[in-house]
Amino acid sequence: MKKITIAVDAMGGDNAPHAICMGAAEACRTFPDIEIILTGDENKIHAILEPVPPEVRSRIRVVHASEVIGMDEHPVVAIRKKHHSSMKLAMEMVRSGEAQGFISAGNTGAIVAGGVLIVGRLPGIDRPALGTALPTIERPSFMLDMGATVRCKPENLYQFALMGSVYSRKILKVTDPEVTLLSNGTEEIKGDECVAGARDLLMKSALNFKGYTEGNDIVWGRSDVIVCDGFTGNVALKLAEGIMHGLKSLLTDEVKKSLLAKAGMLFMAPTVKLLWTRFNYEKYGGAPLLGVRGAVLKAHGRSKEPAILSAISAARNFIEEDGVEMIQAELDTSPTHMA
Amino acid sequence: MKKITIAVDAMGGDNAPHAICMGAAEACRTFPDIEIILTGDENKIHAILEPVPPEVRSRIRVVHASEVIGMDEHPVVAIRKKHHSSMKLAMEMVRSGEAQGFISAGNTGAIVAGGVLIVGRLPGIDRPALGTALPTIERPSFMLDMGATVRCKPENLYQFALMGSVYSRKILKVTDPEVTLLSNGTEEIKGDECVAGARDLLMKSALNFKGYTEGNDIVWGRSDVIVCDGFTGNVALKLAEGIMHGLKSLLTDEVKKSLLAKAGMLFMAPTVKLLWTRFNYEKYGGAPLLGVRGAVLKAHGRSKEPAILSAISAARNFIEEDGVEMIQAELDTSPTHMA
Repeated sequence: MKKITIAVDAMGGDNAPHAICMGAAEACRTFPDIEIILTGDENKIHAILEPVPPEVRSRIRVVHASEVIGMDEHPVVAIRKKHHSSMKLAMEMVRSGEAQGFISAGNTGAIVAGGVLIVGRLPGIDRPALGTALPTIERPSFMLDMGATVRCKPENLYQFALMGSVYSRKILKVTDPEVTLLSNGTEEIKGDECVAGARDLLMKSALNFKGYTEGNDIVWGRSDVIVCDGFTGNVALKLAEGIMHGLKSLLTDEVKKSLLAKAGMLFMAPTVKLLWTRFNYEKYGGAPLLGVRGAVLKAHGRSKEPAILSAISAARNFIEEDGVEMIQAELDTSPTHMA
Repeated sequence: MKKITIAVDAMGGDNAPHAICMGAAEACRTFPDIEIILTGDENKIHAILEPVPPEVRSRIRVVHASEVIGMDEHPVVAIRKKHHSSMKLAMEMVRSGEAQGFISAGNTGAIVAGGVLIVGRLPGIDRPALGTALPTIERPSFMLDMGATVRCKPENLYQFALMGSVYSRKILKVTDPEVTLLSNGTEEIKGDECVAGARDLLMKSALNFKGYTEGNDIVWGRSDVIVCDGFTGNVALKLAEGIMHGLKSLLTDEVKKSLLAKAGMLFMAPTVKLLWTRFNYEKYGGAPLLGVRGAVLKAHGRSKEPAILSAISAARNFIEEDGVEMIQAELDTSPTHMA
């Protein structure tokens, strides 16, 4: 059995450190092949881990970190200066090889900056991409970039497509994944210069490229991999989350106001819950940062215990499937700068 | 009573010409101060107008157009070459002053191209913007650009903010509208170079600028005017429409599968319908193309009769409130190139 070590930033996210530590313990209970290193305030972490049974506890190591990178801090500055932060210490373990994977629910920008500056990019990769498996109607779609690289050159989008395709094939087990570029319409004449440039590169590539996709196609899951820049991906993901939260909040209010609706909800609750679960854009169980030399995953800032378990499970899967090596192999055999 | 003439492209949109003609007739019935010029296949239009009562019919003029600009045609090429198209003929009436307003549910790109090439830009405006009043939870937000100008310079976004602010104040009757820029996060360090450049211009302007807004804020309506480039706006609007359609379709399927849910829907139907109506992103009743010398409005491609009536009503309102002159006056007193 291959031993897998995952470094977890215990202090990042809205529900840290409690949900992070308990999620990590749950992951150790679930997967007998993993070990976890929790970085953060050791007193707090030890207290949280108190009730964890010894056979699980023995596979969790706590490494004290005296600093935390806040959600609003400047990512690059924080990663460069906060040498004793829980995030930086955990990432350094990936660089040194002490851990193969890293999870944090903290500052996304700092995770990306640390991915590049500490863990390091794969040779041939200019910019990393944050991917996420989106809930859709027909099939799960893997979308990238969700915010790592704000604006892109055509070559960046091309590399994202390459990495997304490997991830879809090797990790999500999709045969010959269909790749599309997110644009402002499906017709060839749509897109800006950058998207059009990426389209040209993808047309010439060996990927199963299906052209442009538009906003509503995201929902239906009309392709396996959707590629966009980090600005657009971030706006789209947050909008989708916002609509689901908005509808939930309005539905709750309306049901409170109407006796009829209240009665209906008694029967409808399972259906509403099913739709909510299916379209919960927050439940993506860890977004991999692709293009770096390790399994670096970002968990949602609002992650609770199950989301942390799910992110650790995704990291474990990525490591077990040699995700990084697979992407590297694909890069080695494909031209990365086709222009 | 100021007489208002609106030229309507009878052939554009999924439900043309029937829904367009009947919507126009309904508008004449509703507003005694308007006259409508319908451009398109005169035989078809006359046949559709057959049942319209004479007192309404007398305020509708039909102008024959032998060509139609299709949904997939190249916008600029179509506008330049199809001299006898229903869209071009209607737009030329705005240029000549024969009509003050124009409506089409057809090819969006062609409407934008025609707005610039036929109707003409306002002096000082580099690029036009397509705006739309979005359904939100707290208050309606006016968002622009939804697809007229794919990628922007900071100066374009600044002008969109200026025009959106005038539209919000004069047409939507919002006092001192709050303006935000859509970005990949609310913190100052977010945004690409263009958004950051626009932010600098807006900070120095007299507008009530409130900084960045992110994807989920769109849903809650946290500002009166949201500014973005046409690429981002188009992806966001289509995604929002797609989510609502996806949920509707899933809900219908689930209710069919479950007896319990079917029973619940008997009670819940009014609530579900209310949510659907409130969040129907297609029902924006005509998106104004701001920055051109006339009331040019785009109706949704799927518009039926009520949506056409609503778009004509919006055009009438825009003309009555001197929308174009108001924007021009604002441009004249504000620096449009502050950089």
